[in-house]
Amino acid sequence: MIDLFIIKVGGNVIDNPALLQTFIEKFATIPGKKILIHGGGKIATRIGDKLGIESKYVDGRRITDAETIDVVTMVYGGLVNKQLVARLQANQCNAIGLTGADANIIPAVKRPVKTIDYGFVGDVYPEQLNIAPLKALLEAGVTPVFAPLTHDGKGQMLNTNADTIASSLAIALSASYAVRLIYCFEKKGVLSDPNDDNAVINLINKEIYQQLLDNKVLSDGILPKLQNAFGAIDNGVKEVLIGHADDVLSNTTATVAGTLIC
Amino acid sequence: MIDLFIIKVGGNVIDNPALLQTFIEKFATIPGKKILIHGGGKIATRIGDKLGIESKYVDGRRITDAETIDVVTMVYGGLVNKQLVARLQANQCNAIGLTGADANIIPAVKRPVKTIDYGFVGDVYPEQLNIAPLKALLEAGVTPVFAPLTHDGKGQMLNTNADTIASSLAIALSASYAVRLIYCFEKKGVLSDPNDDNAVINLINKEIYQQLLDNKVLSDGILPKLQNAFGAIDNGVKEVLIGHADDVLSNTTATVAGTLIC
Repeated sequence: MIDLFIIKVGGNVIDNPALLQTFIEKFATIPGKKILIHGGGKIATRIGDKLGIESKYVDGRRITDAETIDVVTMVYGGLVNKQLVARLQANQCNAIGLTGADANIIPAVKRPVKTIDYGFVGDVYPEQLNIAPLKALLEAGVTPVFAPLTHDGKGQMLNTNADTIASSLAIALSASYAVRLIYCFEKKGVLSDPNDDNAVINLINKEIYQQLLDNKVLSDGILPKLQNAFGAIDNGVKEVLIGHADDVLSNTTATVAGTLIC
Repeated sequence: MIDLFIIKVGGNVIDNPALLQTFIEKFATIPGKKILIHGGGKIATRIGDKLGIESKYVDGRRITDAETIDVVTMVYGGLVNKQLVARLQANQCNAIGLTGADANIIPAVKRPVKTIDYGFVGDVYPEQLNIAPLKALLEAGVTPVFAPLTHDGKGQMLNTNADTIASSLAIALSASYAVRLIYCFEKKGVLSDPNDDNAVINLINKEIYQQLLDNKVLSDGILPKLQNAFGAIDNGVKEVLIGHADDVLSNTTATVAGTLIC
């Protein structure tokens, strides 16, 4: 019996008003304890451009410099996060908007410079999370909504991947709850044929995962998500569900749309 | 015996790196339960200007239009609020950054249009605050840090004066705690001579207040602060302290710098 839903929604939903409205309404109706983690979307880039802040890349990887961390702190941690909270409140979901700095829930380590200096990017270790204040909020019936931001404990905000925040929260909270971690993305689930959007594999366990790897069925884009999912499962998370935002917020374990990983 | 300190710090401190650093260090050392409410400072105007958003005024009063509420949501609710939280965390103060929308703590009513349409400005009624989640955080040893933002319960963020948020929180929490409400501002306190910055009146009760009014001793700037202070006292707040950020964060009731109103 799942008693905590942890749901990550990406920039593709945040950036699309119609998808976002549907998502907010569906998320609000999930009964019981739940946590939302949102990506940033393209609005930070748009606002950064207007402010004359250049997006910087090294070897195709985005760099978070001092100006960029300020932009994402205000756009993800302020605009996107608080608008989500206000709209969830309007849908009778008692949301509270947080970053990893708040109540020191997600301390992080600024990524060490090896070949690339990623700038103000935070790496997270699930065993270092402080879940007591988070549990107090959940037990009080409040729904935490996390922006993809952490801090270094020395006064600096850090940019952290939303998928990583979601899996870290799921792992840390799996000691207290039976967690279903849900990744909403563009596809209906993991596909057995990358060219057929309806060829959803409904269930993947480690044996099936190995077969899929051996048969080279999986697309490059889905591999990191599956690695992340099995990392969560290996660390105590009960189930991971991957699929389209329109489908995967169903709260019954009997009928599952998308790909369930366990 | 005071058991909750509610402290409002204005834009003049937020905008001044040296004053802000001192303030953060002093605030962090206050033992026991405390809440911070911060103003916005000029950074929202600077960022609004860069984004090409014109500041609008009617009869000298600033108007919060749709573009402006987005800017203050991201700047006050994101940048200023989360940077304060990260820096308080670095000073061993377990802060959590909030707006009135979060956990629906401060619902507001969009100001009705009479002669002026102020736009997305929220009026707050202390009796409508939801203090249960706030008390849960305080009892868990967490220090709430509020940006001057509320929401209308219908999905819209609203701009609300930080002094008003501070007094509303103080009034709502005075049923549960003996509250000292502290307003940090540029002067050392209420002055008996507006031209002498050291002529601080250390104690004002209603009798002394009436005398000061009768003798026309008070400057125009201080009158709304005193009205706000006595409004709080009349509604259960134990003490209000007005003075310079450098002085008023002393936590002993025996030695009080600034002007104590009770």
